[in-house]
Amino acid sequence: MAKWLSPLDAMFLYMESPDSMMHVGGLIEIEVTNGTTGDMSRQIRDELQEMTSAESPWNLKLATPRFLKNPVHRWVEDTEFDAMYHVRRSALPSPGSERELGVLVSRLHSRPLDFRRPPWECYIIEGHESGNLMMYTKVHHSLVDGYTAVKTLMRSFSKTPDAPEEPFFFQIPPPRKRLRSTTDAPADQGSFISAVAGHTTSVRDIGKSLGRLSRSRFRKHDPIVTVLQAPKSILNGRIGRNRRFATQQYDITRLKAIATAAGCTLNDVVLAVCGGGLRTYLQSIEALPSKPLIAFVPVNIRPKDDPGGGNMVGGMLASLGTDAETAEERLKAVVASTSAAKQQMENMTRAAIIAYTTYVGSPLLIQTGLAQFGLSKIIPPSFNVVISNVPGPKQPLYFRGNRLASVYPVSFLMHGGPLNITCESYGDTLNFGFVGCRDTLPRLQRLALACGEAVEELEQAFVAGS
Amino acid sequence: MAKWLSPLDAMFLYMESPDSMMHVGGLIEIEVTNGTTGDMSRQIRDELQEMTSAESPWNLKLATPRFLKNPVHRWVEDTEFDAMYHVRRSALPSPGSERELGVLVSRLHSRPLDFRRPPWECYIIEGHESGNLMMYTKVHHSLVDGYTAVKTLMRSFSKTPDAPEEPFFFQIPPPRKRLRSTTDAPADQGSFISAVAGHTTSVRDIGKSLGRLSRSRFRKHDPIVTVLQAPKSILNGRIGRNRRFATQQYDITRLKAIATAAGCTLNDVVLAVCGGGLRTYLQSIEALPSKPLIAFVPVNIRPKDDPGGGNMVGGMLASLGTDAETAEERLKAVVASTSAAKQQMENMTRAAIIAYTTYVGSPLLIQTGLAQFGLSKIIPPSFNVVISNVPGPKQPLYFRGNRLASVYPVSFLMHGGPLNITCESYGDTLNFGFVGCRDTLPRLQRLALACGEAVEELEQAFVAGS
Repeated sequence: MAKWLSPLDAMFLYMESPDSMMHVGGLIEIEVTNGTTGDMSRQIRDELQEMTSAESPWNLKLATPRFLKNPVHRWVEDTEFDAMYHVRRSALPSPGSERELGVLVSRLHSRPLDFRRPPWECYIIEGHESGNLMMYTKVHHSLVDGYTAVKTLMRSFSKTPDAPEEPFFFQIPPPRKRLRSTTDAPADQGSFISAVAGHTTSVRDIGKSLGRLSRSRFRKHDPIVTVLQAPKSILNGRIGRNRRFATQQYDITRLKAIATAAGCTLNDVVLAVCGGGLRTYLQSIEALPSKPLIAFVPVNIRPKDDPGGGNMVGGMLASLGTDAETAEERLKAVVASTSAAKQQMENMTRAAIIAYTTYVGSPLLIQTGLAQFGLSKIIPPSFNVVISNVPGPKQPLYFRGNRLASVYPVSFLMHGGPLNITCESYGDTLNFGFVGCRDTLPRLQRLALACGEAVEELEQAFVAGS
Repeated sequence: MAKWLSPLDAMFLYMESPDSMMHVGGLIEIEVTNGTTGDMSRQIRDELQEMTSAESPWNLKLATPRFLKNPVHRWVEDTEFDAMYHVRRSALPSPGSERELGVLVSRLHSRPLDFRRPPWECYIIEGHESGNLMMYTKVHHSLVDGYTAVKTLMRSFSKTPDAPEEPFFFQIPPPRKRLRSTTDAPADQGSFISAVAGHTTSVRDIGKSLGRLSRSRFRKHDPIVTVLQAPKSILNGRIGRNRRFATQQYDITRLKAIATAAGCTLNDVVLAVCGGGLRTYLQSIEALPSKPLIAFVPVNIRPKDDPGGGNMVGGMLASLGTDAETAEERLKAVVASTSAAKQQMENMTRAAIIAYTTYVGSPLLIQTGLAQFGLSKIIPPSFNVVISNVPGPKQPLYFRGNRLASVYPVSFLMHGGPLNITCESYGDTLNFGFVGCRDTLPRLQRLALACGEAVEELEQAFVAGS
């Protein structure tokens, strides 16, 4: 049975290129309590040899993999599903530190998926010095979006340590409600049209918002970030095909204490942490612009109980205060810009927010194209970096009795955006995944470490007694 | 300083595609006697951090990497040479047996090189259960051909164990005579024309040879293999982008004893070993044709002292006797066909041999194209498998006091040829590298093991007392 892709899902196939691959990834760390990481990895291998099928969507491949620009793509079942192809065993060279892990994940993330098979791969990684098992999974954004990927993967872990025989994620049937907004005929084209029609009904909203945005260019003290404000920087060029990857994990309680003390949101603190880290990092490679860097911050406007399926993401522009010398000033600059943007969005309908996002968030529209053709040097960018905050599982999770210690997102890059910072909450931690273009950003690990220092600076500035 | 590519070298760029990648590889096994494989791997990493340049040709990248079909390609120096990009550290998952090694090399070989950098990569692999360090190197065929690659890599190893400070291969200057037949202007176009002109002078030779080939179709007992003789088989379809890799190492003395007893060449024994292995393997997957499989056997017609540089390879068709039930009959069928082909080639000039090769060895011309467009089912193949025998180093070699235990070639595949068997002599061993298309050939390791059994059968049939 064939399933048609929605136009939005198919867009990720049209955008796929050797330099900008449209797959998203995740790195999971499992505390192995029974035996070694090698024992667990070999046990998974033995199980894979028995598997000749997968559950949806993990068994779906493109009907026309050689024709990626097909205007009406379909998913079909892979009747020769090869579990050993999709789930692979790897190991870290000595000494198996974060550095070797970062290098391996970078390499794995730098490679395109094969569209003649279900476009996902999972790597079971032994040899980390902690004795923990690492699991890196990559999925093409056309098959599963980031939000759905997290939901689906998390469903395959237990909330208790008492499920020793737990199946692998691709062996778990999907929930009743379809995971993908796919149908048996290309009727989704219709839903796309109605979405566009929905936009036009709110044209008054949009007119108001855009009018306000344009006016604010002329008001010196209006903190709302406009599309002409971002400085030119190394964060806006073309990208190569190779990536760098680094991680950081912070206690959410630490970050919330800063937010409470400063009277702002957790998201504001995340932006200030990134701003502080970016300031230190760009100074070290002599590439800090004098004007503050601007972040595009995706905002999920999906209904709260939606099990996932589309790519319903709005977004706003926020200053990262990278021109400010102190952590205090930096957070204030962030808060001023996000408060103004949110106030603006509160007056808009959902459809208007999407239109607004399209206006401010040019990555998929203008910025990528400009960078691709080398025009980014002439026309200024509307933002410098994408910083996303993805909600993750709130409770501790287990895989066959072994606790998940961390869950890092590994996002994708496009021309015009050689850096992506995505963080995901898990239990009482916030897990940062930094993905950079290898050719543009040397020693990305330094950025991760500088973000750690930025947390300490914010604590010193705002939290009493620390 | 730019260097123009010869048309033959550039051809490997025109032929590059996601499915058929034109890089060749080699797997080297080093017996580590001082410390562990991890120690050696980390020492190499520390040295790499100091390196900001490489010697020719390892520092050369394409001037127009985004325009692979450029009719006049040039090599330019990579002024931002990144040693840590080209030399990478890896490790085998437990238990680190030949199986895990084969899987890792398959994956590394299945990935395209990045043409925006010098098109080569080297992987230092820890974790083999033998305690030996593995080193897998891949180079694009447009930069270095297989013959030159072996010569160049071997030059970087010592003939004695007393050179602890030996530099890495890409840090050794090229010999005085240029490694590549490149010049400062595209004058090589001329040498291509003169080569073609050279062919036409020997048109009488070619006419005679081709006449004989056509006539032999009608002579029932003429053992020479013609272009219409190969059976259809699974060895002649399109290929996917993923590979399998397996190895075998045999004592040359064992194989020579068979050759002496049977009164044939070592190469004949190699073909009979492959024939025996293929018969067993194809029977096990129910894909053995009733007619004997035909191998295309490249013959090096380069002057003996040539340090390498072109792709001066002729070739002949040989029966593998896969229809014969006994090892004895199989070797006889091989010898009959190779003797007839060699007798034919002895009467030809070098230029005529090239023309003859073009006629019988259609891989680069017809067979690939037919398979690519799915026509291989209609028009019969002229051969079923390429089996090459590359001369390697005669003496034992050392890397920083550690003996090289084996040297395996890892060749490339094209549409129409999902299997390649290349063997390389090293000291008193013959090292077989089996490369197969993952989608076409399941469990390639079985073919390697079946070749081992074929050696034993030939010994039993021909060598007295064994």
